Formats: sequence, structure tokens, C-alpha cells
Amino acid sequence: MAVSERTPRERIVHSAVTHLRRHGVEGMGLRPVVSDADAPWGSLHHYFPEGKDQLVAEALAWSGQFAAEHVSDYVRSVRSPDPAGLFDHIVRWWAGDLKRRSFGLGCPVAASISDGLAHDRVRLAATGALDDWRSAIHAALLDMGVPARRIHDLSTLMLASLEGGILLARAERSTASLDTIRRQLRPVLLAAVTPHEGPHA
Amino acid sequence: MAVSERTPRERIVHSAVTHLRRHGVEGMGLRPVVSDADAPWGSLHHYFPEGKDQLVAEALAWSGQFAAEHVSDYVRSVRSPDPAGLFDHIVRWWAGDLKRRSFGLGCPVAASISDGLAHDRVRLAATGALDDWRSAIHAALLDMGVPARRIHDLSTLMLASLEGGILLARAERSTASLDTIRRQLRPVLLAAVTPHEGPHA
Repeated sequence: MAVSERTPRERIVHSAVTHLRRHGVEGMGLRPVVSDADAPWGSLHHYFPEGKDQLVAEALAWSGQFAAEHVSDYVRSVRSPDPAGLFDHIVRWWAGDLKRRSFGLGCPVAASISDGLAHDRVRLAATGALDDWRSAIHAALLDMGVPARRIHDLSTLMLASLEGGILLARAERSTASLDTIRRQLRPVLLAAVTPHEGPHA
Repeated sequence: MAVSERTPRERIVHSAVTHLRRHGVEGMGLRPVVSDADAPWGSLHHYFPEGKDQLVAEALAWSGQFAAEHVSDYVRSVRSPDPAGLFDHIVRWWAGDLKRRSFGLGCPVAASISDGLAHDRVRLAATGALDDWRSAIHAALLDMGVPARRIHDLSTLMLASLEGGILLARAERSTASLDTIRRQLRPVLLAAVTPHEGPHA
């Protein structure tokens, strides 16, 4: 969707996501968020009467939905989806985004966990975004034939190594660490579906 | 070392580490840092004439040294160190620290990457701390007989999954994700030394 087609409210949420990704919760200034959204200053209070925590919570909810849809996109677009292919899909999106933005923007959920946990509403929104992301991954893994008892472990491994890999990539200004994680986890992720395809199935 | 044995300068650095772990770079207030260090306000400028970025850089250097020494502690204290045991040692320290501090304090390096990358000095100090941590892990893995070509991949996998696991643990207020990562990576980490012990060595 082009920027011009978004409502002012949507533009403010989207701008908040970007600022959160660069500055965290504490460093996110409301004036720059509204200014970059090309919205009048007064509209902030109109759309977000409960203030900064409400805006951050909505930015995180948007981010969780975006991440969940990105997982579903993979399942829909590939003939034989598998866990390693899904992780590749997610890691490649991040590697591309990090390079496009000169490593200046990280994960909004990670940013809000790093400095925003003292705000209950932010913490709940961050866990909500993680839950949305994780639910989409769980549905995808179940579809691929991963045994139910393995699904939570695999999504934990994927999300943790991805989030940590994004941090390393930003510090190193290189996506090499993300590539390494993708390659290292490949056999672990493929092994989760092997019993259904191997000779002992 | 007890707090009372630290110099005022050391106390300020130590206090900065704690505030960084809770608030990130942008949210770290200098007055609370100095106040919690039980130091006079004027001593901040005396010891850190270049300001906040200098203090954050020193807090990160201290953190990198602490992490490196913690790795060396494992190698010194165990009769037969192996990569999975080292990762257990690191993850268990984090799980204990997270619980002791009610999940309020994360990794200072992760915090500074999340919101401090716009400050060159902070970014260099964060990569320096990661390098110190990684160098200690590399020396330990080499000692354990991990082939040189595998060492960088393994340290990347350990650091990324640990950092992401800390984020998940803080969001979830539970160390369950860290335990999962430890269990899931155990076979991968043990496989790195297997050729030296197995029948085909």
C-alpha cells in the first residue's frame, strides 16, 4: 500500500514502528513520529488519547500481524514448505531489510523488550506480538507435518536465534551472522520432519 | 568485590551497566546513574569528561571483560570442558540472573545495539564487547578440540541464540525459552567435537 493511501492514523502507527526500530521506546520522540507521518500534531492526541504507551502498543500489534502474515505468505507461495525453508524465508527478509536500511533499523519487538518492560502495556503488547508471530509459525509447522510435541521447541529456536542474529548483524554491519545461523540450524529444522519422509516412517 | 571496595569511578561504571541493562542508551539518565553509584554529581564530569557516550563505552568494555572472564571460569573449573557444557554454563548464569532481577535487566550489549547505534562510539564499544566475549569462546572451543573452521560458526550460533533467548525470557518472564535453546543446541554443539572422539577419528 502506498503511503498516500494510508489514513493519518495508519501513517502515525507506521511511523512509530520505524522510530521504535531505531530508537527503542525511551528514545522514541512523539514529535518526530507525527512529523514523519505527515500528520498534524493534534491528531496524535485525537487518535491515541492514552498517549505514548498506547501508540507503542499499536505499533507492536501491527508488527506482530506483519510478521504473522509474512509466515503465511511462505506457506502459500511454496509447493513443498518445510521448516528450514520457512526459516530461510524469514532470515532472508531480515537480511534484505537490514541491508536496505544500512543496519539502522532492528526488530520493533526486540527494541521494546530491551528498554520498555517497565511499562506494563508495552510488555503486554510485545508478548502479544511474539504470540501472533509464534502462532503463525506453529500453524505452518503443523501443516508441514512437524510433530506437535516439537513445534514449540522449534519456534523458540527460530525466534531466539533470529532475534539474536539481527542484533549481531546490526553490531557487525553485516548479514554474515544471519547466514551462519540459517546454515547451522538447517539440519536441526529438517530433522523435525524427517521421520515422516525417511525409510522408518 | 564488595561495593564499598570499589573506587567512585568503578562504582559509576558499574551503575551505568545496570541502568543500561534496564533503560537502554537513550533512556539511561546520568543523574540516577551517579546517584546509585553513591558518588558526587561533579565526579561524573571529572572521570568522564567526554560525556555519556564515553561512560556507555566504558560500561560496555566492562561488560565484555566480565563475559570473557565468565567463559574462562568454565574452562578452568571443569575437568573435561566441551562446547555444550560451556553453553550450559553461560545460559545458566543468565537464567539465574534474570530470575534474581525479576527479568528487569537484560544484556547491556544487546540494549546498546537496540537503541544506541546512531552513536559511533557506542557502536564500536558494543562490537568491542562482542569481540572480547567471542574471543574467549573461540579460545575455549579451540582448547576443547573443535576444528578451527567450525569455531566461528559455533560462537555465532551460541551468541545469537543466547541474546535472542534473553529477549524471549524477559518478554515471557520465564526462563523456559532459555532452557529450550540449551536443550535444542546440545546435539549441535556436541557434534562439533565428535570426530575427535568417535570411531572414525
